Amino acid sequence: MNRAMMIDFYELTMANGYFNCGKKDEIVYFDVFYRKNPDSGGYSLFVGLSKIIEYIEDLHFTEEDIQFLDSKKTFSKEFLDYLRGFKFQGDIYSFEEGEIIFPNEPIMTIKANIIEAQLIETYLLQTINHQTLIATKASRIKYAAKDKVVIEMGARRAHGFDSSNEGSKAAYIGGINATSNVLADQLYSVPSGGTMAHSWVQAFDSEYEAFKTYASLYPQNATLLVDTYNTLETGIPNAIKVINELLVNKEGSNYAIRIDSGDLAYLSKKARKMLDDAGLFRCKIVVSNALDEYLIEALLSQDAPIDIFGVGERLITAKSDPVFGAVYKIVAKEESNQIIPIIKISDNPIKITNPNYKKVYRITSSDNHVIADYITNYDEVINVNEPILLFDPVHTWKQKEVSGYSVRNLQKLIFSDGVLVYSQPSVKEVRTKAMNNLNSVYPELRRFSNPHKYYVDLSKELWKLKESLMKKHLKG
Amino acid sequence: MNRAMMIDFYELTMANGYFNCGKKDEIVYFDVFYRKNPDSGGYSLFVGLSKIIEYIEDLHFTEEDIQFLDSKKTFSKEFLDYLRGFKFQGDIYSFEEGEIIFPNEPIMTIKANIIEAQLIETYLLQTINHQTLIATKASRIKYAAKDKVVIEMGARRAHGFDSSNEGSKAAYIGGINATSNVLADQLYSVPSGGTMAHSWVQAFDSEYEAFKTYASLYPQNATLLVDTYNTLETGIPNAIKVINELLVNKEGSNYAIRIDSGDLAYLSKKARKMLDDAGLFRCKIVVSNALDEYLIEALLSQDAPIDIFGVGERLITAKSDPVFGAVYKIVAKEESNQIIPIIKISDNPIKITNPNYKKVYRITSSDNHVIADYITNYDEVINVNEPILLFDPVHTWKQKEVSGYSVRNLQKLIFSDGVLVYSQPSVKEVRTKAMNNLNSVYPELRRFSNPHKYYVDLSKELWKLKESLMKKHLKG
Repeated sequence: MNRAMMIDFYELTMANGYFNCGKKDEIVYFDVFYRKNPDSGGYSLFVGLSKIIEYIEDLHFTEEDIQFLDSKKTFSKEFLDYLRGFKFQGDIYSFEEGEIIFPNEPIMTIKANIIEAQLIETYLLQTINHQTLIATKASRIKYAAKDKVVIEMGARRAHGFDSSNEGSKAAYIGGINATSNVLADQLYSVPSGGTMAHSWVQAFDSEYEAFKTYASLYPQNATLLVDTYNTLETGIPNAIKVINELLVNKEGSNYAIRIDSGDLAYLSKKARKMLDDAGLFRCKIVVSNALDEYLIEALLSQDAPIDIFGVGERLITAKSDPVFGAVYKIVAKEESNQIIPIIKISDNPIKITNPNYKKVYRITSSDNHVIADYITNYDEVINVNEPILLFDPVHTWKQKEVSGYSVRNLQKLIFSDGVLVYSQPSVKEVRTKAMNNLNSVYPELRRFSNPHKYYVDLSKELWKLKESLMKKHLKG
Repeated sequence: MNRAMMIDFYELTMANGYFNCGKKDEIVYFDVFYRKNPDSGGYSLFVGLSKIIEYIEDLHFTEEDIQFLDSKKTFSKEFLDYLRGFKFQGDIYSFEEGEIIFPNEPIMTIKANIIEAQLIETYLLQTINHQTLIATKASRIKYAAKDKVVIEMGARRAHGFDSSNEGSKAAYIGGINATSNVLADQLYSVPSGGTMAHSWVQAFDSEYEAFKTYASLYPQNATLLVDTYNTLETGIPNAIKVINELLVNKEGSNYAIRIDSGDLAYLSKKARKMLDDAGLFRCKIVVSNALDEYLIEALLSQDAPIDIFGVGERLITAKSDPVFGAVYKIVAKEESNQIIPIIKISDNPIKITNPNYKKVYRITSSDNHVIADYITNYDEVINVNEPILLFDPVHTWKQKEVSGYSVRNLQKLIFSDGVLVYSQPSVKEVRTKAMNNLNSVYPELRRFSNPHKYYVDLSKELWKLKESLMKKHLKG
C-alpha cells in the first residue's frame, strides 16, 4: 500500500493533462486554508505537518502502481514514464504544528511545478483535515475539564487505524493527558493506560472477588469499575471494602472508582460522600460515557466531584462536527519569472480567495497579547517601528492603528527544492508549544458560545490587489 | 506498525490479570452487537469481516512489542512470554459481509479462552464500527439517489488513511457506483474516476481554453466543471461551445458538466434547458457540494434533472451520525464443560444483555418477504414444519404465530480452533449480496423518517432463560 496512490483520480487526469499540453514546467503557488472553525469555535489548532513531511519524503510511484495506472487506459506512456521517476522538488511553507490557526489564512503554501503541486493535494488535505479536527476538539474538551485529567479512549469507535492512532496523537497535542491506545504510546509516546471492562467483573463469581483480584494484581493503579450491577448498592460498597482490605495501608498504592453509566453528576456526588465517609479521601473518581466538552462543562458547573474524565467516541470522531474543511487553492503562477496573482471569484463572497503568494504574521500587542493575524503580499516588509493599520477586509471603516507591537512570521520553510530543511520537534514538544499558544490568547476566544472573533486582516497592499483583481474579473 | 498493538491498554491489564490469577484457560463466549441504527434508520449493513479475518490470521506480538510492553512495568514476565507465542486459537461465528443487521442480535460470537477473546476486542469493534457505519450511510444515500449514479469523493475529508480506503470499499458495498480514491480501486477494485478541479480552469488563461484542452485530451470522459467563475453566464456557455466543437461528432465521446456550488436544483434545471436548447441531450449533469441522503432526496423531489451525484464529506465521515456503537459483551463461560449463561444487568433496560451462547435465524414468509430475526439458545432446533411463535420480548402480548416460513442461520463459522474455514467472497460479490439483501426487505424499512421497526425476537426458551437470570440477579 503506497500512500502516493491514496489520491483523487482527478489529480492524475489533471497532471497527465498538464504534462501533455505543455504546462508541466509551469511554477504555481497553492494555499491551504479553511473557512470556519469546527463547532462554531473561535480558533483551530494545527496538526498534521509531521505526517505530511513523512509523506513528501517518501513520495514515489512503484512499478506496480504504474502498471495499475496504465490499466486505466487514461494516461499517456510519457506521463507514466515521468511518474516512474517522480519526486517532489518544490518548496513548502507551513505553520508549525501546535500553532493556533484561523479561517482564511494560508496555513501552508506550496510552490512547485503544477504537476507536483497537484499530486500532493489529496494527502495534504486529508492529513490536515483529520489531525487538526481532532486536536481542536481535544483542546476544547481539555479547556472544559480545567485542571482535571482527560483520557482519550475512543479506539473502538474510531474510523479505522489512522483515525485511532493519529487521532490519539492529535488529541494529546491538543491537551488530553493520556490515551487507552497502546500503539499511540509505542509510536508517539502518548502515555497509555487503562484498567478493567465490565467483562472482567462478570468473569468472576462476584463483584467483590473481581475487585479483590484486580487490586491484588495492580495495587499501584487500581481503578475499579463500579457500575456492572448496581453502582450505589453494590459497586461502591464492594470497592470500599477491597480498598480498605488491600490498598489503604499499602505503600505506593493508587486507587479510584470508575462510573461508566447513569447520571454522572448525581452518582459522582453520592460516590464522593460514600468514599469520604469511609475515610477514602485519596480515592479518585473517574467517569465516562459519551462525554464531550459540553457535558464536561455541565458536570463541573454542577460541582460534580470528578477527578478524571474518560472521553471516547465524541473526541475520536469529533462527533458534533466531524468535518474540517481545509481546501487547496491556486493563488499565483509564474510567467517569465514574474509571479502572477490568481483569484477565485464566487457569487458567495466567503468563497472568494485571497490572491497571490503571501506571508502571514501574528501580531502581539505591547502588553503581550496576541491581537491579530496580518497577511501580506510575499514581498512586503513590516517595519515594527512604524504603526500598523489593522482594518476589517469587508467593513473597512472598522480599523485601528497599533504601535509598539511585535510580529512573528507564521509560515516556516519546510521543504526547499524538495529538500527537508525543517527539524520537526517531538510530539511532546509540539504539545508544550500548543499549550503555550492556547494560553497566549484571550480566554474569550476559547469559550464555546459566541467566542470572540479573532482578526485576520490583509495588508493595505494585499487588499488593494484583491479589489483590483475582483474588479478586473467583473469587467472581463 | 503491528495492528495487534492498536489495542486498549485495559485489554492487556485484564489479560495479564487472567493469566496470573489462574483463569487463562477458561473458555468464554462474547457477542458483538449494537443498540441503535445510525440516523434513526431501520437497519444497518454489516461490513468489516474481511479485514477482521486478515487481522486474526496475522495476530502476533513481535519482540519489539514485548520489549515495549515490558517497559510499562505492568505485566509479568510469564505473561509476556505467553504473548511471544500468542495466536488466536478460538472459534469465530459471524454474519457475512453484506447482510442487513438489526439492533440487539449477535452479529458475531467469539468462543475462545478468556485472554484470546479479550485481546481481539478493540480491533474487532473499531473495524465493524467504522465499516458498517459507512456502508450503512452509503446504502441510504444510494437509496435516495434511486437509479442515478453516486460517486464517493470524500478522501480529502476522511479521518486518515483507513477512513478513506476502507471507507471507499464499504461505501461501494453499500451501493455507491464509483470512487475518486485511486488506492481503493487498486486494493479493492472499486471503480475509480474523476476529471478536473477549479485549479485546472484557473491554470489556463480562459475557461474556454481550459475546457477545450481537457476535452481534446479526454474526449471519452470529459466532465467540465462549470462553476469556477459564473455557472450560467460563462461556465455552461463555454462548455456548450467546446462540446459542440470537439465532442458532439466524435465517436465514443462522453461528456457532462459538473456544478459544485450554488442552488443545485435551480442551476441543474437552468443547465438542462441550456444544454437541451443547444441540442446536447446526451450531456449529463453532475452535481456535488456537501450532499447526503436528505439533500439528494430533496433535489430529486424538486425534479432536479441530475444524472450523477458526487458525495464527499457527509458520506466518508457519516457526518450526520458519525458513531456506530457496536459493543462486545461476555454472554457465557464454560465450567466443567458446561456452558454457563452470563447476563449483564443495568438500570437501563436497553443495556441488559441477551445471555448465553446463541444462534440467529432470519425468517422469510411464505410470500418471500423477510419478516423477523429469531434468536435462540445454541442448542435449540427449529422445525420449519411447525408454526413458530414470534413475540415482542418486552410487550409479550404482541405475538403472532407464523407457518410456512423458511429460516436461514445468519452466523457462519469463520474460524474453527483458530483455523480459517470460511472463504471470503470478493468485494464485488459482497456488494451484489448486499444489493440483493436490501431489495429483499420491505421498502418501509429503508425510508428515512420513522422507518418500520423490524422484529428481532427471542425464542420462548431464550426469553425464559433471560427472565430467570434477571430474577435470580435481583434476589442475589
